[in-house]
Amino acid sequence: MRKIPVCSELLNSTKVFLIMTKKKAPKSQTQNIPVGVVGSGSFATAIVKMLVENSKLVHWCVRNEYVKGAIEQRGHNPNYLTSVSFDQKNLKVTTDINELVSACEVVVLATPSIYLSDAMDKMTCDYGDKIFVSAIKGIVPKVNDVVAHYLRDEFKIGFRNQAVIAGPCHAEEVAMERLSYLTIAVAEEEVADKLFSLFSSDFINVHCSRDILGNEYSAILKNIYAVGAGISSGLGYGDNFTAVFVSNAVREMEIFLEAVYEVPRDVNESAYLGDLLVTAYSLFSRNRNLGNLIGKGYTVKSAIQSMNMIAEGYYAADSVYHTAKSKQLKTPIVDTIYGILYKEKNAETEFKKLTLLLN
Amino acid sequence: MRKIPVCSELLNSTKVFLIMTKKKAPKSQTQNIPVGVVGSGSFATAIVKMLVENSKLVHWCVRNEYVKGAIEQRGHNPNYLTSVSFDQKNLKVTTDINELVSACEVVVLATPSIYLSDAMDKMTCDYGDKIFVSAIKGIVPKVNDVVAHYLRDEFKIGFRNQAVIAGPCHAEEVAMERLSYLTIAVAEEEVADKLFSLFSSDFINVHCSRDILGNEYSAILKNIYAVGAGISSGLGYGDNFTAVFVSNAVREMEIFLEAVYEVPRDVNESAYLGDLLVTAYSLFSRNRNLGNLIGKGYTVKSAIQSMNMIAEGYYAADSVYHTAKSKQLKTPIVDTIYGILYKEKNAETEFKKLTLLLN
Repeated sequence: MRKIPVCSELLNSTKVFLIMTKKKAPKSQTQNIPVGVVGSGSFATAIVKMLVENSKLVHWCVRNEYVKGAIEQRGHNPNYLTSVSFDQKNLKVTTDINELVSACEVVVLATPSIYLSDAMDKMTCDYGDKIFVSAIKGIVPKVNDVVAHYLRDEFKIGFRNQAVIAGPCHAEEVAMERLSYLTIAVAEEEVADKLFSLFSSDFINVHCSRDILGNEYSAILKNIYAVGAGISSGLGYGDNFTAVFVSNAVREMEIFLEAVYEVPRDVNESAYLGDLLVTAYSLFSRNRNLGNLIGKGYTVKSAIQSMNMIAEGYYAADSVYHTAKSKQLKTPIVDTIYGILYKEKNAETEFKKLTLLLN
Repeated sequence: MRKIPVCSELLNSTKVFLIMTKKKAPKSQTQNIPVGVVGSGSFATAIVKMLVENSKLVHWCVRNEYVKGAIEQRGHNPNYLTSVSFDQKNLKVTTDINELVSACEVVVLATPSIYLSDAMDKMTCDYGDKIFVSAIKGIVPKVNDVVAHYLRDEFKIGFRNQAVIAGPCHAEEVAMERLSYLTIAVAEEEVADKLFSLFSSDFINVHCSRDILGNEYSAILKNIYAVGAGISSGLGYGDNFTAVFVSNAVREMEIFLEAVYEVPRDVNESAYLGDLLVTAYSLFSRNRNLGNLIGKGYTVKSAIQSMNMIAEGYYAADSVYHTAKSKQLKTPIVDTIYGILYKEKNAETEFKKLTLLLN
């Protein structure tokens, strides 16, 4: 296990850790950490489900009054993970982010990345001592950058008050209480303690890391690669090719992560490789499904329109492609997917060319 | 890309390569290399299919007269990959390994590992200048060791006359001519040239490596991990867990490979990680299917009996477990699977314990 060293950008503590093993705090203690979730999609709903395991009251800021009313009346999100029932006494639902942030010590951001700035722009309350946890896994289009940078630059929320949730964790399986692993990346060990206790449960194993930016970027990259895995599947490539594609993707990911944030890391940790695998292989993955439609011959526009959910990989491809180019990185997979998504290049032709570059 | 250095055990050339990029020899030249395949299972059949793309005549040593007669009369293997048709004029089928070895310059060994010594023990002809290519991916029970060592120790076939075929390459997809990648590990570049030209085709991309033992061991390990992936699936664990399991498995594989054969290698190359992925995720995988039955509650014995094909992972687990113990390696996944397969340990209980060791 390679350990991550102290990174001056992130912390001034001298203690280093990639994986911190924590003991869970007593439930009574955890229940005293006021926590809330912003977002009403499937992953937001899964996170609320995780949190009610440990917290008597979870604040939940949803998009509009309809969703709020439906959750309050029916006890479940009307649009996503409808099978997950909540006990009303455990939830405080609102549509006002200021109400939520004011009431909470820990705020989990779980909107689709394209809606994050809509929510955050409404934040006028004092938030200086709050901990913001990103579960977003996408590029913020307004600034064309990752959430960690967006929060730091636009809201002066330092890395010490930030965390990133990563790991192979499809919301649909959390809904079924199938054992899942989360990696929570933080700058401060104290924050790790809190989040570990808030999220750990019988079906969620939590590990902690200090690689905030690496975890965020890898979560973004894996969505692009999942679109690619879907395209190849739609084009008729089989399991043998998918395996080659994914093993090349994780090596390309390693190159990209080293270029944008150079700390020693093992990309074969679950937060990186595991997250890529679950997204590239799972039929639950909306990014894979988007790619599959394109591979089958849908235009990019019609593939996007036919999906009810947002495929983060589409937006990520644009941002990551330009970052890779600006750093003169060799990223043939990202280049191929960018060309197909944004330059109307033919998927079949582009993948034929790509096959010659993989090994 | 990390390069593999000269390894004195394997070669005295000063030129180093992990991936060699070759130009395919003209077909007329390839057709002059007499080549044969020993084995009549699905992978042997797939290899014969690959070879007839480039060779006018492929020698094929099958298990018995029934299989020989069926291939000659019906033009396909009667038991495996029955959809693959061969033109009789391209095949010279025999049941006599001496006839095949005498006629060939390159001999591809593709029997199940437990039958290899039955075949090889019959070899009485001169084979000193032949090239033996192992496509076996299993432990030879007679010596409880890998094929490369078995050939070297029992038959005095040096590494210079050996090669290993690795890579994510399910026979069933080769039968469908779906694009697949092979890694051929060799000690001598001259051998690489020949094999590259024999195997490369429109649906087979070949890369060459010098990591003979690493490729052989990783192919063996991945079968054990595929049994594990199957057990977890049979027990009801989901995609999120499988991703964590596989990302831990590739790290365990790296530890094992470094301990048994220490050369710099990138386990995220297709020959290692790719091969693990295709076996752990594909429904074609017999190792995964064996594990799945055990996870569902079958006894190990009844699970093995219910399968028509041999799951190499079963035999491999015994050998690899003891090698790992003798080297005092930390291999919790191999230990768990060994306990279930050989010590009648309960799969559910053992996997519950294992989940606490993964990250």
